[in-house]
Amino acid sequence: MSTHSITIAGKTYGSRLLVGSGKYKDFAENAAAAEASGAEIVTVAIRRVNLGQDAGAPNLLDFIRPERYTLLPNTAGCYTAEDAIRTCRLARELLDGHRLVKLEVLGDPKTLYPDITATLEATKVLVKEGFEVMVYCTDDPIQCKRLEELGCVAVMPLAAPIGSGLGIQNRYNILSIVENAKVPIIVDAGVGTASDAAIAMELGCDGVLMNTAIAEAKNPVLMASAMRHAIIAGREAFLAGRMPRRRYASASSPLDGVIG
Amino acid sequence: MSTHSITIAGKTYGSRLLVGSGKYKDFAENAAAAEASGAEIVTVAIRRVNLGQDAGAPNLLDFIRPERYTLLPNTAGCYTAEDAIRTCRLARELLDGHRLVKLEVLGDPKTLYPDITATLEATKVLVKEGFEVMVYCTDDPIQCKRLEELGCVAVMPLAAPIGSGLGIQNRYNILSIVENAKVPIIVDAGVGTASDAAIAMELGCDGVLMNTAIAEAKNPVLMASAMRHAIIAGREAFLAGRMPRRRYASASSPLDGVIG
Amino acid sequence: MSTHSITIAGKTYGSRLLVGSGKYKDFAENAAAAEASGAEIVTVAIRRVNLGQDAGAPNLLDFIRPERYTLLPNTAGCYTAEDAIRTCRLARELLDGHRLVKLEVLGDPKTLYPDITATLEATKVLVKEGFEVMVYCTDDPIQCKRLEELGCVAVMPLAAPIGSGLGIQNRYNILSIVENAKVPIIVDAGVGTASDAAIAMELGCDGVLMNTAIAEAKNPVLMASAMRHAIIAGREAFLAGRMPRRRYASASSPLDGVIG
Amino acid sequence: MSTHSITIAGKTYGSRLLVGSGKYKDFAENAAAAEASGAEIVTVAIRRVNLGQDAGAPNLLDFIRPERYTLLPNTAGCYTAEDAIRTCRLARELLDGHRLVKLEVLGDPKTLYPDITATLEATKVLVKEGFEVMVYCTDDPIQCKRLEELGCVAVMPLAAPIGSGLGIQNRYNILSIVENAKVPIIVDAGVGTASDAAIAMELGCDGVLMNTAIAEAKNPVLMASAMRHAIIAGREAFLAGRMPRRRYASASSPLDGVIG
Repeated sequence: MSTHSITIAGKTYGSRLLVGSGKYKDFAENAAAAEASGAEIVTVAIRRVNLGQDAGAPNLLDFIRPERYTLLPNTAGCYTAEDAIRTCRLARELLDGHRLVKLEVLGDPKTLYPDITATLEATKVLVKEGFEVMVYCTDDPIQCKRLEELGCVAVMPLAAPIGSGLGIQNRYNILSIVENAKVPIIVDAGVGTASDAAIAMELGCDGVLMNTAIAEAKNPVLMASAMRHAIIAGREAFLAGRMPRRRYASASSPLDGVIG
Repeated sequence: MSTHSITIAGKTYGSRLLVGSGKYKDFAENAAAAEASGAEIVTVAIRRVNLGQDAGAPNLLDFIRPERYTLLPNTAGCYTAEDAIRTCRLARELLDGHRLVKLEVLGDPKTLYPDITATLEATKVLVKEGFEVMVYCTDDPIQCKRLEELGCVAVMPLAAPIGSGLGIQNRYNILSIVENAKVPIIVDAGVGTASDAAIAMELGCDGVLMNTAIAEAKNPVLMASAMRHAIIAGREAFLAGRMPRRRYASASSPLDGVIG
Repeated sequence: MSTHSITIAGKTYGSRLLVGSGKYKDFAENAAAAEASGAEIVTVAIRRVNLGQDAGAPNLLDFIRPERYTLLPNTAGCYTAEDAIRTCRLARELLDGHRLVKLEVLGDPKTLYPDITATLEATKVLVKEGFEVMVYCTDDPIQCKRLEELGCVAVMPLAAPIGSGLGIQNRYNILSIVENAKVPIIVDAGVGTASDAAIAMELGCDGVLMNTAIAEAKNPVLMASAMRHAIIAGREAFLAGRMPRRRYASASSPLDGVIG
Repeated sequence: MSTHSITIAGKTYGSRLLVGSGKYKDFAENAAAAEASGAEIVTVAIRRVNLGQDAGAPNLLDFIRPERYTLLPNTAGCYTAEDAIRTCRLARELLDGHRLVKLEVLGDPKTLYPDITATLEATKVLVKEGFEVMVYCTDDPIQCKRLEELGCVAVMPLAAPIGSGLGIQNRYNILSIVENAKVPIIVDAGVGTASDAAIAMELGCDGVLMNTAIAEAKNPVLMASAMRHAIIAGREAFLAGRMPRRRYASASSPLDGVIG
């Protein structure tokens, strides 16, 4: 089990932090934040971001350079399995046969919560078509396992709603998912600040993907650096094995489950 | 306001993490953890640790070398103002006129909670005698301010009981203390893992002092490194200015104070 | 909107608390607890409890009398849609055409977490066969809405794993489910003590179903009474409209979303 | 140990809920809320409320009738020991030798946090003068014990700042105070809704005093009733002995202190 590198679909990355490419002032700020974050994977909403489709507009790939970052096309904005599948195929075309995708099939435009049944359906098709599917999903331990069994290369439960910054709402669910997984578990969505990311890693998650927490900080580049350190901190704390929680220093003061 | 350095009693230190010197397997492990933590201040229980008083036993100063670390003698184990004052004087003698001390006057041996009235009393005497007093205290905003007004060079409220690893119990108190302070506020006691330290820094604390969280981790040296990163992460996140918490990504979904 | 009564599938009940019939010392204790709870609906694991199938053994119906309580047969122990459907049909037979059932299709025997896809599948069949389905499910707002749309007469998201007593893990999810629902939302599973039940009701839930929290209290009958009051307290507090949370009494101290 | 009655300074009251007399629309609403709450003790800010000092204005005593309620004069608005002592003497005069008082000495007008050192000082004088002192204080276990030792008839630690509605911030402190006390421990200040009151009682507190949570609810009278039930619920749950918290229903799933 490596400390700071993570292997997804057979490729090893030097950072357990994955970042996004939306909500920044411009591509330059996005690139500076990605750089400061240490991330090696940058996810891209394939329907919203110009990767060359519009020859006259700024191209993200001139800032987030493919020789440096692994681009992770995602299906943000898709509300049906069909739509998400179509978007993945488009991404493969645009990116010369690129197979790694982040699948998200949303349930409604208000909560941006995943539609888990449509997600399962799309997963089956995409895996069959040879995609390497990283999948955004609810923090439901049963369905996370099913997505793994369907062949996803990483399972990405939400911590809280996309763009909420609320931090991990259900730590027990995340812990159950992690304990039961054989592929990387990467918390996706809901992280708001550095300690949220550290907590995800302390629970044993393999990585964290975030966008808004960095892009909407007052100083995105400094927050990106904070997140880089938070991921390292949480990972090392997990591997180091924390002290037990107890009421007092004395040996005979275990927690008794009264307070939660 | 510097990012990672902290100035206490006119001297600037490169790290906002302060570490301890108890509960380790041996002095060598203690030194390795201090090194990995990046700390420049190491606190020492003057009554328990050999700084040369016992010429035949291992001397901490051969491991935690004074030319590298600022030693911070503390009064652990003192339950009266008199006892704590006497211990500080002893420290000054042992350490050739050293003025910087961490005052703790404990209320009882079970909780190791500070006795705030005895602490105020001892503070008055020590400040008058020329000590530079860093003071362990409750997270009571009123008394923290009073300790500052009495001349303490840093005020050190507990996050939770010493050695409990429970993390910050009362975030609002810590925030109120920080907002109202003109001297460094350093969380002392109760941190259990990396995210706890990050949270303290995100609240605007100037530093964190910890011992058990590192010494009683399964791998103390790795946990020390985790804490180093956590302090940096929390500090940068604080300065970067986090995104607001909200229920959903949509602009019109503020939290309404229903859930806490 | 009535204060203390709840209408499910067209029938009105005087209490918003639903209780169970497992884990008690004996049927007499179960009956005493049901009485103290004020509940009018008692759920029964149709495969585990003797309702007359075994003529020689004590019969629950002699203690929890059908003329006083509405029996709610449940499919505890079923891990497939087929099995759950079969169990509901059996209940209908045993109970003379009884149509109200609590559907649970479990994902695994360790977590007792619902299998949401199998639950959706069973729901479709049962609704078509004329059952009035109250459905145990995850706290996933999208799937809760879908279960309502499929015709369930009540949707019953978990607060935490069955038998855990951990209390509501994801308050934002429960709140989203409630805000979006047109049928009663009844928290099912995970409540551990009185305040947990009150919190569910304060979030706007229409009711709470619990078993272990009462049955495994040291004094089940007294805990049943506690739960009766907790449900009333939470319901009234919800209807009364709580004061806003703020840092201080002064008007100008709103919470700013820093602390969560 | 009685279930629902509480004995303070030798007198037994039928309710463990104590309510206030400020922030209501008028005395009539105050009286209706007190009635609905079931409280038998009503605290009164002796400097702010007309108990007959102003013969031409409405008199609280015409609404909160002394033959029905025990009036508990309090020293709200006092920032020094002297001022608080003077106010208690004034109360004794106004109320014909009444000895029971609630002492509060505040640290500053923003946080309304108690000044614990001034509180200790005032306590000594008042006890000596024959007052029966119920004392508002911080949730500091050491000072709570000291206030008991000085002769207070009840110790009243805050849950959170006065008027904040934040609920109990430091459950471990409240628990430590309760475990160590020989006089009634009554949570005073900070309760926001019914579940907060239930939690206080579940921790073993002997009672709760609240004002803003009722007076500033949209419907104060209904909230008063909610609080009445919440206190009963929490008390009964405490006495009933809750089930242990655990990750799953299976016997072998204890909490391991990782999540807090």
